Amino acid sequence: MPGQELLLTTDLLTEGVDFRLADTMPEAIGFKAMGVNLSDIAAMAGEPVAALVGLVLPRSGAPDLAERLEVGLRQLAKQHQVPIIGGDTNVWDGGLVLAVTVLGLAMPPGPVRRSGAQVGDAICVTGPLGGSLLGRHLSPQPRLTEARSLHRTVTLHAMADISDGLAADLGHILQESGCGAELVASQIPIHPDAVRRAAQTGQTPLHHALHDGEDFELVFTVSPADAVLLASRGEAIIIGSCVEAGLWLRQGEVCAPLAAQGWEHHGTGN
Amino acid sequence: MPGQELLLTTDLLTEGVDFRLADTMPEAIGFKAMGVNLSDIAAMAGEPVAALVGLVLPRSGAPDLAERLEVGLRQLAKQHQVPIIGGDTNVWDGGLVLAVTVLGLAMPPGPVRRSGAQVGDAICVTGPLGGSLLGRHLSPQPRLTEARSLHRTVTLHAMADISDGLAADLGHILQESGCGAELVASQIPIHPDAVRRAAQTGQTPLHHALHDGEDFELVFTVSPADAVLLASRGEAIIIGSCVEAGLWLRQGEVCAPLAAQGWEHHGTGN
Repeated sequence: MPGQELLLTTDLLTEGVDFRLADTMPEAIGFKAMGVNLSDIAAMAGEPVAALVGLVLPRSGAPDLAERLEVGLRQLAKQHQVPIIGGDTNVWDGGLVLAVTVLGLAMPPGPVRRSGAQVGDAICVTGPLGGSLLGRHLSPQPRLTEARSLHRTVTLHAMADISDGLAADLGHILQESGCGAELVASQIPIHPDAVRRAAQTGQTPLHHALHDGEDFELVFTVSPADAVLLASRGEAIIIGSCVEAGLWLRQGEVCAPLAAQGWEHHGTGN
Repeated sequence: MPGQELLLTTDLLTEGVDFRLADTMPEAIGFKAMGVNLSDIAAMAGEPVAALVGLVLPRSGAPDLAERLEVGLRQLAKQHQVPIIGGDTNVWDGGLVLAVTVLGLAMPPGPVRRSGAQVGDAICVTGPLGGSLLGRHLSPQPRLTEARSLHRTVTLHAMADISDGLAADLGHILQESGCGAELVASQIPIHPDAVRRAAQTGQTPLHHALHDGEDFELVFTVSPADAVLLASRGEAIIIGSCVEAGLWLRQGEVCAPLAAQGWEHHGTGN
């Protein structure tokens, strides 16, 4: 496979941290475990090739739980034509852990990394953000097709999937690229769930769009010309640009520092 | 990489099942977690290329524990020149789980599987067996070099690593190959630990050699001529042959059925 680097990603989901077994359908937990891994492959604009599933099951009701988790795991894997080629299953007296590994192939001219953002780049996202906790966090739709289309159409400088929140994941890109960013508040696409969530929390919808995790949209940087091309095709929403240093939020005339803080996982925060 | 299939393996180690955190050095647990995965690659006569490490850590003392686990993980990985290229770490209120994934390359003419044993094959192992619980189970030495040497020298029909016990893992080969085996009791190499262990349990050393798990030697089948060649080079010990059906143990004139039973994991059995 000349020119095609291999991609390998693993993500753990643990009971009480990433989900509560008491109020989540096991099928949804399985779906999510596959989704977060496929989203990691999407963030590199790769193509998933195969998956392995590791399950550590609580002793009580283990066979039924395993079966229901697998329904969800297989549903999303099948949707993206990824065979589950193996894994390992343990039973113990503790809580539920899912350890999914996905092998992928980078698409020419190579994998997109977090480290390639440049001063002057436009910053884009693939869709509306915020409020995923109202349900979308359990049914992540990895942007695999979208990422590969972007990768074919333009030169992606840097990309990440939004798992910890826009500010946090963009922060990772900035840190690895050694530059800063200025986001334009009015350009950030706000998901209807962020509005609903804001009504519950007393925060603004914008706050939720900036800081909520598990949206699983992509955030990426490209040249301004490429950004305009993608926006005109409806494939990207331009939300700001890369600057020398810092992370800034512009609201009208005011430009204030924005904390690159992430979202707290369910079991411990929120 | 024409002619070179990819191999992917994942193995979970869970507290209370595979080890007791109270009486095991974390470095040894890390070493073992890497070892069982590399042993899976050895069983296919492959070459390990990269590893991912997933850790679910108990909240109390998590940073120190992670560091000590990594010492062991890295020690064995380095010994076999396998870079640890990534992973995921979670902290929770439960016990310790290690989820290691290893990517490997099959060596020409392809990976060795469990399903190729044929009636008339000689059955061989790479070293003495039994009593691993006295300590060897925590420092598995994956037979990677030995497996690739065998693969270059002869045609390996079927192979497995001995993780569940000789009888159990040979049983897996027989099941997938659709044949049986007759083992010759006097030919089975007994590890000194099996003798020491027998003094503790009241079982025979042979019983421990047949049924103890986690020896991490290889069991494989080849043509009788190839077996003799390997034995003459000191690379294999011939312990029996493949027959039409069943699993049998010959002791002198008596040939009796042998249960393909495995070994109970520490936390629950022994």
